[in-house]
Amino acid sequence: MKITAKGIYKSIELIRFQAPVVHNITNYVVMNNTANALLAIGASPVMAHAEEEVEEMVNIASALVINIGTLSERWISSMFKAARHARKKGIPVILDPVGAGATDYRTKTARDLIASEPPAIIRGNASEIMALYDDKSKTKGVDSAASSDAAIDIAQRLSEIHKCVICVSGEIDYIIDKEKILKIKNGHPMMSRVTGLGCTASALCGAFAAIGKSAFSATACAMAVMGIAGEIAAGVAEGPGSLQIHFLDALYRLSEDEIIRHLKIEY
Amino acid sequence: MKITAKGIYKSIELIRFQAPVVHNITNYVVMNNTANALLAIGASPVMAHAEEEVEEMVNIASALVINIGTLSERWISSMFKAARHARKKGIPVILDPVGAGATDYRTKTARDLIASEPPAIIRGNASEIMALYDDKSKTKGVDSAASSDAAIDIAQRLSEIHKCVICVSGEIDYIIDKEKILKIKNGHPMMSRVTGLGCTASALCGAFAAIGKSAFSATACAMAVMGIAGEIAAGVAEGPGSLQIHFLDALYRLSEDEIIRHLKIEY
Amino acid sequence: MKITAKGIYKSIELIRFQAPVVHNITNYVVMNNTANALLAIGASPVMAHAEEEVEEMVNIASALVINIGTLSERWISSMFKAARHARKKGIPVILDPVGAGATDYRTKTARDLIASEPPAIIRGNASEIMALYDDKSKTKGVDSAASSDAAIDIAQRLSEIHKCVICVSGEIDYIIDKEKILKIKNGHPMMSRVTGLGCTASALCGAFAAIGKSAFSATACAMAVMGIAGEIAAGVAEGPGSLQIHFLDALYRLSEDEIIRHLKIEY
Repeated sequence: MKITAKGIYKSIELIRFQAPVVHNITNYVVMNNTANALLAIGASPVMAHAEEEVEEMVNIASALVINIGTLSERWISSMFKAARHARKKGIPVILDPVGAGATDYRTKTARDLIASEPPAIIRGNASEIMALYDDKSKTKGVDSAASSDAAIDIAQRLSEIHKCVICVSGEIDYIIDKEKILKIKNGHPMMSRVTGLGCTASALCGAFAAIGKSAFSATACAMAVMGIAGEIAAGVAEGPGSLQIHFLDALYRLSEDEIIRHLKIEY
Repeated sequence: MKITAKGIYKSIELIRFQAPVVHNITNYVVMNNTANALLAIGASPVMAHAEEEVEEMVNIASALVINIGTLSERWISSMFKAARHARKKGIPVILDPVGAGATDYRTKTARDLIASEPPAIIRGNASEIMALYDDKSKTKGVDSAASSDAAIDIAQRLSEIHKCVICVSGEIDYIIDKEKILKIKNGHPMMSRVTGLGCTASALCGAFAAIGKSAFSATACAMAVMGIAGEIAAGVAEGPGSLQIHFLDALYRLSEDEIIRHLKIEY
Repeated sequence: MKITAKGIYKSIELIRFQAPVVHNITNYVVMNNTANALLAIGASPVMAHAEEEVEEMVNIASALVINIGTLSERWISSMFKAARHARKKGIPVILDPVGAGATDYRTKTARDLIASEPPAIIRGNASEIMALYDDKSKTKGVDSAASSDAAIDIAQRLSEIHKCVICVSGEIDYIIDKEKILKIKNGHPMMSRVTGLGCTASALCGAFAAIGKSAFSATACAMAVMGIAGEIAAGVAEGPGSLQIHFLDALYRLSEDEIIRHLKIEY
């Protein structure tokens, strides 16, 4: 199945029309951005983390996004509970293993989640993806210290083992489904100077998965849209402050023509 | 008591002059926006949620805003404790029942809070307000799935029972005090694409209540100011990202003349 | 050691080049701003608050910033644990005693932290700094109700007792190391209408301390950069909404020439 500009735009139109509920259990730092990005693309975000309500919230959602950026015990329990319930209900789960490799706590939580409730999609930077596999790589805080190339081989193995799509994001985004690899070459370096745009990418994977796209297509659409909106925003931004604002405006206004002009995809 | 543009502006001047402390126990998603909106209008926001300090914080506050957007057990205990103390001290309590109707946990928490510590003002969308009354309506995540008309009758009953002012917000905002109904027709559709503007409206109710306005006037002022600042912002915004920024700027600069020109109020 | 515009710019270049990891245990309201300001200046922020991982996160960090703006029991334990570990490792600790004086809970937490694990730098407004010393002053929520002058004498005593640098921030920022006092006269009144810029200042102290500046120099650099970026932002902002955005852009683009033109420093 080929990812085309026309196809991406059709999916955006569907999100705008259906306004699917995307349930996020995410970190404190990015909750606001994540909600705003989901609203800008046309989805309907909810945030709920209490064990008492996560299952019920999953029931009304069309995708569940789990992000381990600011963990604590109660939240971890809720993540497991929500993921288990989502899988039971056939609702796609997206995992963002923020900072995996930086501390054992994060690495273990991410690995346990994947082993116990394999998500449909995992999106992380090279260091984070490598940390999901073994202890040989190290993460520099929440930023990547590994090259994407080194991570691709590992991502393929993880994809095989856990039967999920893996996105290794970076200057080039690699979307990996076992032996299949798609490269998205959109984006702008200034995006790494805005906190939580990786988390936003994972949330957008949720929005595209929520309208019934396959895990592979949803991830490709999300990463393309992120990169394109980022390029448009960077073209008018004077720094990372205004980039973030223009990015939301670009997501909201994104037209088929802009996607056609910007999309840089490679198989 | 008639709500006029002049009266609204006088109240804003009073907020700017007094900088009343507004204590918020609110959700993680909107804390930053809420604080910024309160600062922009001239109030002095505090956020504190620990049982150990909420009473003491209420003591220095002129209004307490409770928002159930991201609940958990400890926070609920603090909400009850703070509301009880605020009522004892005669400090107005504003409740925002975010997502009531979406999960039993939220519905029950909101209903229990209202039953045990009736707030001065409750502000929610149609679905949320209806959920406070019975189980017949359903909420779509945190966005409304019910019509405002259907909610008005229920809001009047709730207002009668709990002796409080209820605002059913939406395209038109209905401010209801038993049989009395005021309509505010300001605002812009793009505002629903920015997370937490409903929560901001509730916080602004707190700012106007904090300078001694009646619950009804405070709610009318807050909803009018929200809608007008939103219209001004939408007039220059290129999407929901810049809308949010222009909204804060508009709140900060709001002039009597702008209020006169924009205000659309109906009894 | 004299603080010069050239010296400040050299330090910024070093931050941009080294991208030091700054570990923040901070409040919910400002996490996003703090991360964005650290990214804009060139540092690599991490946020982690679980007892299970704070020591390991400190291990990969070059500075630890503790901010008590939204306290609760578990977070307090983590703050102590992280501070103890940072001191053991020789990593500079910066404390922002948000709202000390407003509630006993905050005052006690801040005093206990200082007594048990004296930080390298404490930055607060006049009320907060005075509350660290005795119970005679009172804080108005999280905004200062005391004059800076009154706080300087107390700051000098605290600096002597705890062997740390203290910054009393306000219209003029006083950086105090025992009998040594430096005044920074940069900044703009509109900055007080944006939530969390004080917290951002503390985080920037962390960024400059992280590249090996002395506590005194780091604080002076951070406060100067805050004030200068704030002035540049206020020059083009239409209110506190756009101020915040322009502030991040200004931090990101800050040039030696801008620092030379704006810096107002006095011994």
